[in-house]
Amino acid sequence: MEITSTQHSEIILTGDRATGPLHLGHYVGSLKGRVELQSTHQQTILVADMQGLTDNANNPNKVSENILNVVADYLAAGIDPLQTTICLQSQLPALAELTMYYSNLVTIARLERNPTVKNEIQNKGFERSIPAGFLTYPISQAADITAFKATLVPVDGDQLPMIEQTNEIVRKINSLAGYSVLNECKPMLSKASRLPSTDGKTKMSKSMGNAINLGATEKEIRKAVNSMYTDPNHIKIEDPGSVEGNVVFTYLDAFHKDEGYVQQLKEHYRRGGLGDGTTKKILEECLQELIRPFRERRNELLNDKAQLIDILRVGSEISRNKTEQVLLDVKGVFGLNIL
Amino acid sequence: MEITSTQHSEIILTGDRATGPLHLGHYVGSLKGRVELQSTHQQTILVADMQGLTDNANNPNKVSENILNVVADYLAAGIDPLQTTICLQSQLPALAELTMYYSNLVTIARLERNPTVKNEIQNKGFERSIPAGFLTYPISQAADITAFKATLVPVDGDQLPMIEQTNEIVRKINSLAGYSVLNECKPMLSKASRLPSTDGKTKMSKSMGNAINLGATEKEIRKAVNSMYTDPNHIKIEDPGSVEGNVVFTYLDAFHKDEGYVQQLKEHYRRGGLGDGTTKKILEECLQELIRPFRERRNELLNDKAQLIDILRVGSEISRNKTEQVLLDVKGVFGLNIL
Repeated sequence: MEITSTQHSEIILTGDRATGPLHLGHYVGSLKGRVELQSTHQQTILVADMQGLTDNANNPNKVSENILNVVADYLAAGIDPLQTTICLQSQLPALAELTMYYSNLVTIARLERNPTVKNEIQNKGFERSIPAGFLTYPISQAADITAFKATLVPVDGDQLPMIEQTNEIVRKINSLAGYSVLNECKPMLSKASRLPSTDGKTKMSKSMGNAINLGATEKEIRKAVNSMYTDPNHIKIEDPGSVEGNVVFTYLDAFHKDEGYVQQLKEHYRRGGLGDGTTKKILEECLQELIRPFRERRNELLNDKAQLIDILRVGSEISRNKTEQVLLDVKGVFGLNIL
Repeated sequence: MEITSTQHSEIILTGDRATGPLHLGHYVGSLKGRVELQSTHQQTILVADMQGLTDNANNPNKVSENILNVVADYLAAGIDPLQTTICLQSQLPALAELTMYYSNLVTIARLERNPTVKNEIQNKGFERSIPAGFLTYPISQAADITAFKATLVPVDGDQLPMIEQTNEIVRKINSLAGYSVLNECKPMLSKASRLPSTDGKTKMSKSMGNAINLGATEKEIRKAVNSMYTDPNHIKIEDPGSVEGNVVFTYLDAFHKDEGYVQQLKEHYRRGGLGDGTTKKILEECLQELIRPFRERRNELLNDKAQLIDILRVGSEISRNKTEQVLLDVKGVFGLNIL
């Protein structure tokens, strides 16, 4: 298997925690972009099983059972393993070793100031009972990014502190070495606005039951669309309705191929006379059409797990070689390459 | 090279941070015991270079330059690499990987409660600017101990919290697995009382300049003994003197072969008429005799670094196989052995 992408100069590292199947939020926010980028960039996708355990150690099945689901999601959405290297975090010892070395360069106070981690600690209600692995996961992410010599890291705006943390470590290592061992990375901000959950309350979330998975059945799609948050003041069909914050319209904006038609629907809805039943019917058709090929391909893939495992194995072998080289470089900075 | 010690049932893991050459405090507190244990136990000594970096990342030479010094000290003191496996921490990726998995099972609050770490944080003046790797090093020690399936860990009394922390992790892993994957370890408390520093102020310490190294020159030994703290109230030779807290007598107790003779000296000193010059002369002779063969052997060994490296390499290879097997078992508990 030849990875043709090694000819491209920009190196992208991206990935997902393997804590659940991927959903439309992932599709819009990252998967679609990755499919576009794979032909013009050297792209690696890391299935982050170890990071998934940082807040799921007491329920590890949530991670282990989703590894192949996530790989199937990637392929179903159009990721081509001949263009994109897909690898498994737990298969790359260099990532854990780099994490150990970098841990000596980052203080606990610095980790506690990280706004992303702060937020997540609050959301998960951890307070001081936060697992050490969770507080320190920005260091592990820095290990992932630098181990692949990534130059570009696709992120959401609220993940910018992770890039900052990584580049701080890069600068410390380079300063210790007195020459450039690692390179700083740049964030690649997603152009897509974040897809809300079907209830309109938060972002779509694997764990909140308000997501539409890439493998959703027809029935699940129908149910999800029918339960979508619209305009609570739009009671009778003839009432004027609001499209802002109306999840059905947000999804039509995100997924319907005909922008002009969506524009017409919005105007009709605003002046009254367009019922939620109708807009939901239109959205459902659009989502059924979008998801059907994903689901079918995904099911086929999951029927041949040996093939998925093989893809992960080959990608992990390629990645092992790359990351071991960076580890050797970093160990060299600390003088630990005597054997 | 055959490791005959694999026939013994008790497994000992012990080791030293490679942050300086070993001194008489190490000899009395642990090295002597290891030499005795190696023929009756399956013993591994871990040269802890990665742990040495947890508070020396900005001065990594302190670690890298001492790795072979420490190995030479072991051999000079009588450690036999055919009986004891000597290995290098940074050569064993499984230790870093196990640390990552265990990090998810230990909270930051738990680490901050560890009395040994608390003490060291205070001694080093870290406060909140403590490196993450330093706060979490008890997890890394638990990885070391469990990776070798150690049943006995030689410790000082103040390191008992480390054993407790390790066994907590062992119980969590076994409870997650539902069967016994790892075994708990028992502390093996040193019978020797701790050797004070030459100034009598603290324990002998590599970093405080109050230690007598196993490779000390004749001149260094003489200088160290002459500067030793005795009884500040023992001014004239004929004055009665105190042997309690008198470092010269503590060392005579620890190192002089003739207990009865030391007893006579103590009585003479107590009633007056025995000068510090004389007691120091006696101690110096005793230490010169003890250290001479260590120093000579050590210098020979350090003149053939390739041999030392080879011993570390062989020991690390043996250890890599053992520790990788334990890593596989632990990954199995988390369901991460699909590839």
